[in-house]
Amino acid sequence: MSSEPPWSLHAQLAKDTAEIGDLPLARVLLMDDAHYPWLVLVPRWPNAVEIIDLDDGQQMQMMYEISLLARVLKDVTECDKLNIAAIGNLVPQLHVHVVARRRGDAAWPRPVWGAAPARAYEPAARDRLIAAIRQEVAFG
Amino acid sequence: MSSEPPWSLHAQLAKDTAEIGDLPLARVLLMDDAHYPWLVLVPRWPNAVEIIDLDDGQQMQMMYEISLLARVLKDVTECDKLNIAAIGNLVPQLHVHVVARRRGDAAWPRPVWGAAPARAYEPAARDRLIAAIRQEVAFG
Repeated sequence: MSSEPPWSLHAQLAKDTAEIGDLPLARVLLMDDAHYPWLVLVPRWPNAVEIIDLDDGQQMQMMYEISLLARVLKDVTECDKLNIAAIGNLVPQLHVHVVARRRGDAAWPRPVWGAAPARAYEPAARDRLIAAIRQEVAFG
Repeated sequence: MSSEPPWSLHAQLAKDTAEIGDLPLARVLLMDDAHYPWLVLVPRWPNAVEIIDLDDGQQMQMMYEISLLARVLKDVTECDKLNIAAIGNLVPQLHVHVVARRRGDAAWPRPVWGAAPARAYEPAARDRLIAAIRQEVAFG
């Protein structure tokens, strides 16, 4: 009997982000791009590429976790709009973007993907944002 | 006591799409862009702008309907990748894109939003795609 390989974070996502914490299904990451407060949720489920690769219960949990982080991100950033997306044309490991948008930000009103080159955070600003999110979410 | 205004489809979405049918929560539309098979799901719930404006039960139903249409679109088009997103920076009425992507399509590997100008369908091709989707989904 073959056993499922363990889940591990895709190298590109690891390179582009800082870790915030784990929810029951997804690892929550902060994209290192100070243009926009930008979270990435990655279900810790091996070989998932599409949302439809998750079973029904996992899909419901995914929606719950997306919604939780979207509310927290909106509260913490007081943004004008949320952008939520599963794209994955370049990085095949299933991951969901939750981005806080402001009118006049570096890509507004266009989507953020492929818009302005990423601008790395000042470490202190990044750590403040991560701390503010951690204060609102019961990570495991 | 004020009563909630009835739901109606945003004029821009009506202009850009053809109607496929209604599920319990969302109206399902086909974007009139032959570059990519591209569905738009619009919850028939007045004043919703963000997914977090839906209540928990509606969010679960939304995920169910997204997943149903994503599976059907993948089956019908045999696409390489699904792109699923709620953006809404230009049209504020909550709507979720479900797009079938193929390697080498007009925007690949970039997202479709703001990429190539839309290319209107030949009516016969549009009607065939709508018929194929209707055959797989129990619309109300």
